[in-house]
Amino acid sequence: MVDTAQRSTAPKKTLGSTKPAVDTGPVMVAGHPGSPTVNVAALNRQLLGTWADVRVRARELTARPELHRIEGQSMEEHRVRVLAQLKILADNGHVHRAFPVDLGGSDDNGGNIAGFEELVTADPSLQIKAGVQWGLFGGAVLHLGTKRHHDAYLPGIMSLEVPGVFAMTETGHGSDVASIGTTATYDPDAQEFVINTPFRAAWKDYLGNAAKDGVAAVLFAQLISQGVNHGVHAFWVQLRDENGDFLPGIGGEDDGLKGGLNGIDNGRLHFDQLRIPRTNLLNRYGDVAEDGSYSSAISSPGRRFFTMLGTLVQGRVSLDGAAAQASAMALTIAITYGSERRQFTAGNDTDEEVILDYQRHQRRLLPRLATTYAQTFAHDQFLVKFDQVFSGKADTDDDRQDLETLAAALKPLSTWHALDTLQEAREACGGAGFLAENRLVGLRADLDVYATFEGDNNVLLQLVAKRLLTDYSRKFAHAGTGALARYVVAQAADRAYHGSGLRTLAQTVADFGSTARSVGALRETNVQRELLTDRVETMIGEIAAELRPAGKLPAKAAAALFNAHQDALIEAARSHGELLQWEAFTQAVESTQDEGTKQVLTWLRDLFGLGLVEKNLAWYLINGRLSAQRAQSVTAYIDRIIARLRPHALDLVDAFGYRQEHLRSNIASGAEKERQDEARAYYREQRASGQAPAAEKAPKKK
Amino acid sequence: MVDTAQRSTAPKKTLGSTKPAVDTGPVMVAGHPGSPTVNVAALNRQLLGTWADVRVRARELTARPELHRIEGQSMEEHRVRVLAQLKILADNGHVHRAFPVDLGGSDDNGGNIAGFEELVTADPSLQIKAGVQWGLFGGAVLHLGTKRHHDAYLPGIMSLEVPGVFAMTETGHGSDVASIGTTATYDPDAQEFVINTPFRAAWKDYLGNAAKDGVAAVLFAQLISQGVNHGVHAFWVQLRDENGDFLPGIGGEDDGLKGGLNGIDNGRLHFDQLRIPRTNLLNRYGDVAEDGSYSSAISSPGRRFFTMLGTLVQGRVSLDGAAAQASAMALTIAITYGSERRQFTAGNDTDEEVILDYQRHQRRLLPRLATTYAQTFAHDQFLVKFDQVFSGKADTDDDRQDLETLAAALKPLSTWHALDTLQEAREACGGAGFLAENRLVGLRADLDVYATFEGDNNVLLQLVAKRLLTDYSRKFAHAGTGALARYVVAQAADRAYHGSGLRTLAQTVADFGSTARSVGALRETNVQRELLTDRVETMIGEIAAELRPAGKLPAKAAAALFNAHQDALIEAARSHGELLQWEAFTQAVESTQDEGTKQVLTWLRDLFGLGLVEKNLAWYLINGRLSAQRAQSVTAYIDRIIARLRPHALDLVDAFGYRQEHLRSNIASGAEKERQDEARAYYREQRASGQAPAAEKAPKKK
Repeated sequence: MVDTAQRSTAPKKTLGSTKPAVDTGPVMVAGHPGSPTVNVAALNRQLLGTWADVRVRARELTARPELHRIEGQSMEEHRVRVLAQLKILADNGHVHRAFPVDLGGSDDNGGNIAGFEELVTADPSLQIKAGVQWGLFGGAVLHLGTKRHHDAYLPGIMSLEVPGVFAMTETGHGSDVASIGTTATYDPDAQEFVINTPFRAAWKDYLGNAAKDGVAAVLFAQLISQGVNHGVHAFWVQLRDENGDFLPGIGGEDDGLKGGLNGIDNGRLHFDQLRIPRTNLLNRYGDVAEDGSYSSAISSPGRRFFTMLGTLVQGRVSLDGAAAQASAMALTIAITYGSERRQFTAGNDTDEEVILDYQRHQRRLLPRLATTYAQTFAHDQFLVKFDQVFSGKADTDDDRQDLETLAAALKPLSTWHALDTLQEAREACGGAGFLAENRLVGLRADLDVYATFEGDNNVLLQLVAKRLLTDYSRKFAHAGTGALARYVVAQAADRAYHGSGLRTLAQTVADFGSTARSVGALRETNVQRELLTDRVETMIGEIAAELRPAGKLPAKAAAALFNAHQDALIEAARSHGELLQWEAFTQAVESTQDEGTKQVLTWLRDLFGLGLVEKNLAWYLINGRLSAQRAQSVTAYIDRIIARLRPHALDLVDAFGYRQEHLRSNIASGAEKERQDEARAYYREQRASGQAPAAEKAPKKK
Repeated sequence: MVDTAQRSTAPKKTLGSTKPAVDTGPVMVAGHPGSPTVNVAALNRQLLGTWADVRVRARELTARPELHRIEGQSMEEHRVRVLAQLKILADNGHVHRAFPVDLGGSDDNGGNIAGFEELVTADPSLQIKAGVQWGLFGGAVLHLGTKRHHDAYLPGIMSLEVPGVFAMTETGHGSDVASIGTTATYDPDAQEFVINTPFRAAWKDYLGNAAKDGVAAVLFAQLISQGVNHGVHAFWVQLRDENGDFLPGIGGEDDGLKGGLNGIDNGRLHFDQLRIPRTNLLNRYGDVAEDGSYSSAISSPGRRFFTMLGTLVQGRVSLDGAAAQASAMALTIAITYGSERRQFTAGNDTDEEVILDYQRHQRRLLPRLATTYAQTFAHDQFLVKFDQVFSGKADTDDDRQDLETLAAALKPLSTWHALDTLQEAREACGGAGFLAENRLVGLRADLDVYATFEGDNNVLLQLVAKRLLTDYSRKFAHAGTGALARYVVAQAADRAYHGSGLRTLAQTVADFGSTARSVGALRETNVQRELLTDRVETMIGEIAAELRPAGKLPAKAAAALFNAHQDALIEAARSHGELLQWEAFTQAVESTQDEGTKQVLTWLRDLFGLGLVEKNLAWYLINGRLSAQRAQSVTAYIDRIIARLRPHALDLVDAFGYRQEHLRSNIASGAEKERQDEARAYYREQRASGQAPAAEKAPKKK
């Protein structure tokens, strides 16, 4: 037996260490002559981003066992535990950064989200329940209410004295919030709003805190006064009495067990002619006077609606960051295990091969690592933008629209990527990956709903596409329809002519038909930028041209024309989001100081960028952007980059900076290495002693 | 309120009905003039396949509430329930078809698997625990043991008097079974085998029935006698006494909570010099005499090993079928819900659009429906092959190898597809899809491990690739290396020449550069076959040429060369599996009698085939199989097929024949349609009465 007692109790990952804490064994030749070295501590700091200090402090908090998920708890036990954990967060002040200074907060929007995102490592249920309480419920009071609401409600919200519900979604309306059925009809005689649920589909649904803990709610309803519907507004509604029973006029039920996040008591609410005071309207963007007359500083109902909803963008911001963290945890677990686990001898006499040395295993994990890096860097820029808008530093209409578009572009990509990565990591760890003790299945189950809540991913990408179309049409607005049509025609003719060659790139890159030369070109930052940018612009340009007749069609026919391009639009939006990530990654590479780290990050960025080109290779070929020969070299070059990155894989996940207290994954604890070492020592000793049984001789071949 | 009481209790899906039980509403114009009609009853029978009667009877069984999963049970409760359900199956005889007639079975291998697969609708835990007991544990006694073992053990196994463990996998060895560490050393003095676990990595792990219920085990260990290791053999080992306590020399622990399948008590076992009688060796393929001399009818240790493992192929067969069923259930739920759910008005004045009428929604669900059909038809052929081999009707070495290859090609594709489809279905149902009451999340959690147990999907595909390489090299064996080299060179030259045109298809299809003409060609069965077949053959041919030097290299260098092509090999194997599915689908279409059904199935098959071409479009372009113009028409044509299939979507899922007792999904019960109807009626009445509040007037545009 190898003495492994000392290793087994020590946490494996050490934050800020410049060397991986794991013995990487003979195949991990990161330091062989000519190979660059990653400065793990510096890279860790870079990955932590603008609010690195907040994150480091948050990770001390999330390392505390009392905040951790206990796998296997019943839904009821889990709910009780998470509510108690919320009290720890409230007492600690961790969740108060975004609230006003005069109420005990620190007006720090970016830092607040950074700290909030880190909670995902403790328990995604804790994160999302905290998000419901302080982000959605508290955020709605803060952003949609006025001073009287702040003074009356925020202290109780911040302290968790008043757990609350963000009652927006209904059974019948999720993505289309403008069409919710709940009504708030003003009664001037009583100076009250009458809240009513007209039919079953208008029940509020999927609401965190609604099944059990919610004492009050910010309720969204159609505001009707003097016979006019002024659209969706938010109201403060008391839900339960001191005993936790619904007040008269309110009913509800439990959503019950879910695919994950079962520490949160999601539920349904319905209202039967419930009366609330006029002043319960959160009236920052619209108000009703005692006589029932409506007023708003924003005259357009549509713009008012989007302004109100826009204040809630922080949910999407934080999901983007949390999803990137979940991907990073999954890859830390799978790459650590893959660097220790051995299976099949692969040409060796005795020793089995480390599974991360198999090409397929690398192909499964390293491109996902590249994407996770891209998303981490993109998220930090996104968070800076969010902070600028919400702090008022840069808060024009354009800034808010850009922030919305960023949110709609990035949140879908990172949440889908997290699910994909958690699943691939789980499969890459085999049966061990399926055990709850190794965390991957639980994280995946919890993260699942991130793809559809706070904006369904497909719906969000469609919003991005519409914004791209608008920008595109503005670009050509001065040229008139004639010029646009000419532009599109010219483009098509150009493509037909250069059908087997290059179009846009013809000016910047010469294709000599040599694979080596092609590979060199694809490695250039400007070539990647051109390829990725051109694709988005061309796709949007083509769709815009095809949608052009819609303006002259009846509404139904125009909708049908739009619908016939919906899939292409969403694909274009996705490519736009990927381009944003690539740009963020490239900026991060450019700002990296350490030369060795910069080299490895450049490879990783190339892997991300060329991975996007490979994924859409048919498009580049069909549209004449890449010749067949050059296209073929993309995959060959990706294989080469992956082989180059392999020795740095552990450094690259160690740089995420998670400790075993965050990972809490048995297979990432060094236990697998202990087992492998013990088994290898056993066979080594047996061979040395001459006690090994002989292998049965195979019969001679005929 | 609309009176919906009657509908809400009636099961939605009616087996054998030629009309969908759901009112399809005005957009579902399946019967519009010129549109074909699907004969749902006949198609249902066709999908049920060769053992349709067994499946129909099994579905009566799986409709029984006492066999159903209760969502939200604790692991302990779930385990108790599933064990009790196993007793129902044993008493019912449902699981005895594969056992010998003289022991109360019916020697019906195909029917046994068909019936077993259907259990997935009741609870995947029930299915897999039944599979452990009667498929793996019982199957090992049946196939690896001899008469004395059959007589002694099979009755107790069949009746569940002796719940058992299939103890093959170890913590340290999953895919590489040949390298397990557990030893069974023969002691001629005592005429006993000594079972021993030499180190922690050799603990048996992930074993169903091991944590709690297993009384005995079929244990796999290295058989060592007279100083020679004869490789992995199976032994009968008693594990626990009447009190459920481990016998002396045996230890173990619980694997605890898993990502799914928590009705099964997976656990670990280890052995400390445990002595068992010599006759406990399951000695069909290898025996040890009293004096310790070893004998086997199969002289090659390698072939013996694969023969022994080959008897256990039924696990892969049944997972392939169960996965196809899970996909079918997911699509039945999502397409039913998508046909009732409405969101956004999309150009209508008042009525919201049914979400399945959105192009993106169709693109998400209908190609997956086509793949599920292909997998269902391919599975039936696979099951027929299995039945022929195991009944001895066609049981040559080649047959067994073909069966192994089929299993290794199909099981990965269908299990991955099930996970992908369950997830897409879950997201397509939004928040409702995340509730346990709608089944999708639970099924996905349970099916997760299907991708890595009974053969890791990536490892299986690599086996397929090796078989394809072997077949390929045999094909050219007579030609010698010279001819092969010339072949490869000729191929490369050909590609360079026809780089922007067609190669193989040049003979069969003229490309006139017209999109219409191209679309017509792609629709032809022979063109699809040619495109799909050519890809597999070319990929394998190219890899074979690149691997050719391996024969002359040292083992380590040869392994490195192979490893550098591992990813490409696995992709080729996947394409081979997809081709098999396409062929099975095509045969099914050809054997369809009803003309309307045949037309719709042809579209669905085209969607599957062209979807494969679209997925690999870059390959077809790079290799000159499709021109850029023709390639572009692939996506356009897929869009057209999807629009054509849309009106038949409900018929196509109804043809799977699941009733609400099988689906048990609230959102597929008609409840959503009730809610939508009620809401629409409310607004209709409000408009008719003149009581609707007016919309706030938008301000005039500047």
